[in-house]
Amino acid sequence: MSKKWVYFFANGKAEGQADMKDILGGKGANLAEMTNIGIPVPPGFTISTEVCKFYYDHGKTYPEDLKAQVDEALKKLEEVTEKKLGDPEKPLLVSVRSGAAVSMPGMMDTILNLGLNDETVKGLAKLTNNERFAYDAYRRFLQMFGDTALGIPHAEFEKALEAKKEAKGVKLDVELDAEDLRALVEDYKKIYDKHGKEFPQDTYKQLWAAIDAVFGSWMNERAIKYRQINNIKEGELLGTAVNIVTMVFGNMGDDCGTGVCFTRNPNTGEKKPYGEFLQNAQGEDVVAGIRTPVPLEELKKINESVYNELLSIMEKLEKHYKDMQDIEFTIEKGKLYILQTRNGKRTSQAAIKIAVDLVHEGLIDKETAVMRVKPEDVERVLHAKFDDSELKNAKVIAKGLPASPGAATGKVYFDAAKAEKMAKDGEQVILVRPETSPEDVGGMNAAEGILTARGGMTSHAAVVARGMGKPAVVGAEEILVDEETLEFKVNDTVVKEGEWISIDGTTGNVYLGKVKTVKPQGLEGPVAELLTWADEIRRLGVRTNADVPRDAKVARDFGAEGIGLCRTEHMFFEKDRIPKVRRMIVAKTKEQREAALAELLPLQKEDFKGLFRTMKGLPVTIRLIDPPLHEFLPHEEEQMKEVAEQIGITVEELKSVVEQLHELNPMLGHRGCRLTITYPEIAVMQTKAIIGAAIELKREENIDVIPEIMIPLVGHINELKYVKKVVVETAEQLIKEVGIELTYKVGTMIEIPRAAITADQIAQEAEFFSFGTNDLTQMTFGFSRDDVGKFLPEYLEKGILEHDPFKSLDWNGVGQLVKMGTEKGKAARKDLKVGVCGEHGGDPRSILFFDAVGLDYVSCSPYRVPVARIAAAQATIKNRK
Amino acid sequence: MSKKWVYFFANGKAEGQADMKDILGGKGANLAEMTNIGIPVPPGFTISTEVCKFYYDHGKTYPEDLKAQVDEALKKLEEVTEKKLGDPEKPLLVSVRSGAAVSMPGMMDTILNLGLNDETVKGLAKLTNNERFAYDAYRRFLQMFGDTALGIPHAEFEKALEAKKEAKGVKLDVELDAEDLRALVEDYKKIYDKHGKEFPQDTYKQLWAAIDAVFGSWMNERAIKYRQINNIKEGELLGTAVNIVTMVFGNMGDDCGTGVCFTRNPNTGEKKPYGEFLQNAQGEDVVAGIRTPVPLEELKKINESVYNELLSIMEKLEKHYKDMQDIEFTIEKGKLYILQTRNGKRTSQAAIKIAVDLVHEGLIDKETAVMRVKPEDVERVLHAKFDDSELKNAKVIAKGLPASPGAATGKVYFDAAKAEKMAKDGEQVILVRPETSPEDVGGMNAAEGILTARGGMTSHAAVVARGMGKPAVVGAEEILVDEETLEFKVNDTVVKEGEWISIDGTTGNVYLGKVKTVKPQGLEGPVAELLTWADEIRRLGVRTNADVPRDAKVARDFGAEGIGLCRTEHMFFEKDRIPKVRRMIVAKTKEQREAALAELLPLQKEDFKGLFRTMKGLPVTIRLIDPPLHEFLPHEEEQMKEVAEQIGITVEELKSVVEQLHELNPMLGHRGCRLTITYPEIAVMQTKAIIGAAIELKREENIDVIPEIMIPLVGHINELKYVKKVVVETAEQLIKEVGIELTYKVGTMIEIPRAAITADQIAQEAEFFSFGTNDLTQMTFGFSRDDVGKFLPEYLEKGILEHDPFKSLDWNGVGQLVKMGTEKGKAARKDLKVGVCGEHGGDPRSILFFDAVGLDYVSCSPYRVPVARIAAAQATIKNRK
Repeated sequence: MSKKWVYFFANGKAEGQADMKDILGGKGANLAEMTNIGIPVPPGFTISTEVCKFYYDHGKTYPEDLKAQVDEALKKLEEVTEKKLGDPEKPLLVSVRSGAAVSMPGMMDTILNLGLNDETVKGLAKLTNNERFAYDAYRRFLQMFGDTALGIPHAEFEKALEAKKEAKGVKLDVELDAEDLRALVEDYKKIYDKHGKEFPQDTYKQLWAAIDAVFGSWMNERAIKYRQINNIKEGELLGTAVNIVTMVFGNMGDDCGTGVCFTRNPNTGEKKPYGEFLQNAQGEDVVAGIRTPVPLEELKKINESVYNELLSIMEKLEKHYKDMQDIEFTIEKGKLYILQTRNGKRTSQAAIKIAVDLVHEGLIDKETAVMRVKPEDVERVLHAKFDDSELKNAKVIAKGLPASPGAATGKVYFDAAKAEKMAKDGEQVILVRPETSPEDVGGMNAAEGILTARGGMTSHAAVVARGMGKPAVVGAEEILVDEETLEFKVNDTVVKEGEWISIDGTTGNVYLGKVKTVKPQGLEGPVAELLTWADEIRRLGVRTNADVPRDAKVARDFGAEGIGLCRTEHMFFEKDRIPKVRRMIVAKTKEQREAALAELLPLQKEDFKGLFRTMKGLPVTIRLIDPPLHEFLPHEEEQMKEVAEQIGITVEELKSVVEQLHELNPMLGHRGCRLTITYPEIAVMQTKAIIGAAIELKREENIDVIPEIMIPLVGHINELKYVKKVVVETAEQLIKEVGIELTYKVGTMIEIPRAAITADQIAQEAEFFSFGTNDLTQMTFGFSRDDVGKFLPEYLEKGILEHDPFKSLDWNGVGQLVKMGTEKGKAARKDLKVGVCGEHGGDPRSILFFDAVGLDYVSCSPYRVPVARIAAAQATIKNRK
Repeated sequence: MSKKWVYFFANGKAEGQADMKDILGGKGANLAEMTNIGIPVPPGFTISTEVCKFYYDHGKTYPEDLKAQVDEALKKLEEVTEKKLGDPEKPLLVSVRSGAAVSMPGMMDTILNLGLNDETVKGLAKLTNNERFAYDAYRRFLQMFGDTALGIPHAEFEKALEAKKEAKGVKLDVELDAEDLRALVEDYKKIYDKHGKEFPQDTYKQLWAAIDAVFGSWMNERAIKYRQINNIKEGELLGTAVNIVTMVFGNMGDDCGTGVCFTRNPNTGEKKPYGEFLQNAQGEDVVAGIRTPVPLEELKKINESVYNELLSIMEKLEKHYKDMQDIEFTIEKGKLYILQTRNGKRTSQAAIKIAVDLVHEGLIDKETAVMRVKPEDVERVLHAKFDDSELKNAKVIAKGLPASPGAATGKVYFDAAKAEKMAKDGEQVILVRPETSPEDVGGMNAAEGILTARGGMTSHAAVVARGMGKPAVVGAEEILVDEETLEFKVNDTVVKEGEWISIDGTTGNVYLGKVKTVKPQGLEGPVAELLTWADEIRRLGVRTNADVPRDAKVARDFGAEGIGLCRTEHMFFEKDRIPKVRRMIVAKTKEQREAALAELLPLQKEDFKGLFRTMKGLPVTIRLIDPPLHEFLPHEEEQMKEVAEQIGITVEELKSVVEQLHELNPMLGHRGCRLTITYPEIAVMQTKAIIGAAIELKREENIDVIPEIMIPLVGHINELKYVKKVVVETAEQLIKEVGIELTYKVGTMIEIPRAAITADQIAQEAEFFSFGTNDLTQMTFGFSRDDVGKFLPEYLEKGILEHDPFKSLDWNGVGQLVKMGTEKGKAARKDLKVGVCGEHGGDPRSILFFDAVGLDYVSCSPYRVPVARIAAAQATIKNRK
């Protein structure tokens, strides 16, 4: 039985329709659809993508019955247009274009004006009464056909054109008259000769050569590369379709023209037609930028009826496709043709506004609106960005990882303390460091943005900057920071302290000099509305990682439903704490250590009260001390002296402690619960602070808190058992002493592979799990996030990894441990609450996975909360399928 | 229905037997068994362990029908002994002893001479015609009963005894006469009064009080602790049994005596009775060490018929139990009684000889022999040890991890080069380092043994020492090495360069001064025979980790069936290579790097030829470069100068390279396949060396080699794909050029958790797997083996971990990844060969697991090969069940 390979469309009736993209390609399906709904589309036909597949499956040959089907379609086309391919009187001219199911702009071939030859060009001239137009069309066809179908270098034709203009002493193509163009046609033919190619005067041969060329272009290098880059897998698409469409011309006189219009403003989303029009021109003239198009409204003056027709078509198309449309049109002698429509590209702001407006207009439902907006759109409207006009002239001097979004400009300072001081003096500051450490936090907070030469997406600088909502570019490895001479070098550029730079934490770009920024719009209007819809849809809870009330407040305002991770040690770095923390570390006896801890207790209790107060009524997960103790001690000679004096020991003693604490791989060292097993008194102090804070808030301010105490870095159930016992005994005693009712939970991070593997055992002790996917990724891959910059960029470039696993969860590896841990945990304890508090908690692709494997919530940095809300809603919708 | 609680035995007939240990305890079951086979055992009865369980399950009460059963057994006992409990004329005396299914020596209570009171003591005196003996027995009973049944401190009785001797002016107990002892009995009674306790003159009450005491002792602190330490889980044992046995006395005159004998020599295993005898004495006298026993042969002179009877009983018992027996006997007035028999403890050497001899004697089969020997026994006979007699007086100054077995003594040197020089000058040297690095290898090789202050069981020092078969103690954290003053301190002891120390790599002890060592016996005689039997039994192959022909030779001699891991980078440290390696690292262009690699190629090829030649016909797995490159560069100022000069760059350039290569967590850094992905030219060179060596050996020496090229640190299939492509292309080209047939395999280490999780994918590219359980353990636990000394000892002490996971595989966590990786890998590729080359490959408990999950082979350091052979055989037998 014969298969249908060719789909005809004309005069309000098409054999295809919009949902046949797979076999008609996007363009073909849309031409058919538009035809069906009565849009004035030039008639034509589409050769299906299945032919493309057949072509490559069968050694570049066509199905036997294809020719007959093409002939039949061509015949019909000739009938409806009342023209004929190759007819010297009434020649039919067509365009031959590629079009796959997925848009691959500019990657495959297009031939226009097919059907012209030495005879038909005369017919065209007569028919249009415009010889210049006819020969211009012919020479364009010769050029495109030669290049595309026969492989004659494009440049040769260009050269001939330039030579002609030079000979005539003119600059613009339009200054060539019919005579010139006729001569140029002869020059072009000579180029064919020179390359031993023959231009087929037989128009039917032209057609098949063009079809061959389009199918051939599916496997050209550009197209293959494009599919690789855009992650289009082999076999995912059947191939390209070939669209053969009657030519219409916008350049046949002043009653002609061409334009592009959007049904709404693609920059702002405003509901108002938007577009450009160029009289007496073809599409390529617009692209070439030789003449400047006028705003769409001008068309009204030129031809009001066509303008009104266009407006009504725009409305019709938008209603039909239920989205803002980007439409190409041509007016040929006062008649309007629509050449293409597609969902229009738009800015983040517009995407959100349009989606929300369409819901209000009843065109789409809330779920559709939520799916229309990319999570990054939500993020973008909440962060500062550079002024586009200024950005054009700014010089990119380096590129790092886009660690915390937003744009910032300021003067370079290399020292956190100095940065803080300069900011206090009213300067805009960018803190530039080789890498940051917890002691830089003050300077980071004071700066407009942070730039580091080392570190990955989850380095200290990145994590802290995201928490603060500060733009940050990290791991800009080309930058060599010299802290002695107070300058940084990048290639030949030297930037000294006090000089201006600008950084874009959304792209990773570092610019020399000052670039104006545009303030963000904030969480109001359409984005706020969209997010409430997302909240109605999503299954996953969204919490935040916040250590201080300030961050917690930001996150609450952004819609966080609790704190998923409070890193208690961040409080240790405050100026009034750090000496006490250090005395605790250098303590030689348990008694000394307990004395130092006793001084920390009231301070830490106040911290927790602040957090609980801010999060009133929402759950707060507090992680016990996690980092290795040496992180709290100075490592440089100069600082050591100061610190030793401050805490009242000799420099030698301090050095000896630092040396004892030194580890070859601190990431895998004495930290997390390993610390509280060695020094249970730290857990005792922290538990007292947490439970004490909850008790006092309840008694003094009538605020109910359910603290969730989280024990980090557990790999074996016995570790959890040991520390949990200390925590519970301390808590129970405190609660008993006060005689109050207080509920608290004790749970654990799942961040060690072994914990995920033995999650069923661990769930016997843990009342909740929180996946620490940063560390889990480090250990599952064996990648140190601090050092991965040495090879990860190359891995991504060489395609060894598809995603940076610290940015977007590795579904197949780390994800399997998350899945295993969740399943085993929930099997062992039905009411186990399972969340994630790694950086992945704010990454949409990761959130999709977390939703699929049944986590209860994600927790992310405050500024990612809106992103997580929408991503979670999208995950719910996608995973429902 | 009534349950049987009491088991009687007398005169060749017992109600119990040997296989009833669970309910009769070890002692009770053996008494029954011996009775049944006609051994002269004093009659008695056993109250079962089920009573003990009942006792604790029912609030320390007994089953209702117990009393009736005890009464009946007592009656039978009185009948066979023709004595009666409490009878003033013919008093029955019994011992009341505990005895669980598992021997818990000294942990529970024993009461002897029960049945004595103020009346029966007189009867005993008359009956034995020995008043002194009777009162001595009585006062002993009073003491034991008071202490054990009534809780009167033992010391009080001792004090009274001492007072009595002092008053009489004598030193020894035996110097007290009947009168003294009678008075002492009165003194003892006063002690009872003082404590408000009453001594029951009612002998039946005595009996029940003693039964109570024995059952009560099951839960005393000592016993609970013992079970904890020996890993006897709660509920694993029902409890203790109570053995009530007629007393026999070896201290009633010169026709009496007591002794212990072994059926073979427990030190050498020689088949010759061995033991000691003490005339006119009770067991406790032997223990007290007051008199020195004579060798067993002396008994022949004293009483030849008893001696002959004992010899024939020994033979009977050994044949019956099919193992060397440790027998307690007593001679009462010329009549021989056997009080106990059990499998005798023995040295490693004896264990092996006895097992092998018993097979030759037809008593046991080869499998039983293999199961009788502990894998450590095999190891011990192959390593040097200290002379026991000298060891007694040696002072232990520190204790570290027993990293590589054997004993060594020598003069302390802190510098590898100096150690090497001194050794060349004929000194015995112990190399003492804070930790070793690859540059110390020469010194390590020259030294008798290695001692480090830092590092774990899989640290560089430990791994290399094991490979060399050198004794090593590592991670002796108390030791502070001062490389400037050339001394080390440990507490108050200072040891200077050139002073003698001795180290025991089997125990981890460090001794001050010189301790004489005893040379090992080597792989010959019984141990060699036993190992051939093990080879017949085992399913797992045993390979070795060896980098140089010397190690490979040792391993072959020890029975290795191939090389499971050759670490190519170890070759890089040789003096003639390291400058070339360094030039390769500091190369600024690919061309420079390739030039340096070209110089390395012929050297590395020769290395491989050496290995292939040694392993002729056996498989050799060669791992491509693994460690981070900075390990090959110097880090200290002094050395940098020298090296910079040597490789022809400036110190600044070298420093800059070192800084660039610096990593915060090198363990998780730029190493393994990550290196060969960045620098494929290294893989090219190594492949050329491997394949080139195989080709040349084949052509020049007609040796067939199947090299197995192993790509380390793979976490993602694409990493393996990438490097494998480089390897295969290089190999194929080389093979094609030569026009020879050569088979080689390309496989990977599974040492990253992600590799185990995605083993099905990885097996699509890998022709073999080798589990690198060292790194896999590091990453699965999140433990750095270099730093774990900071908390692991505490983890073991606190019972958080049962085993050091670097020493013995963590079955539940890391083991699950090994299982998952093996199953997934073999499911994806049927003929996938799977081995393990981590330190665990030589650990018996780990080998048991590897066998169970279906690995094909284990690979371990050369000196562990014999251990692995026997452990693998035992695993086969155990896992068969």
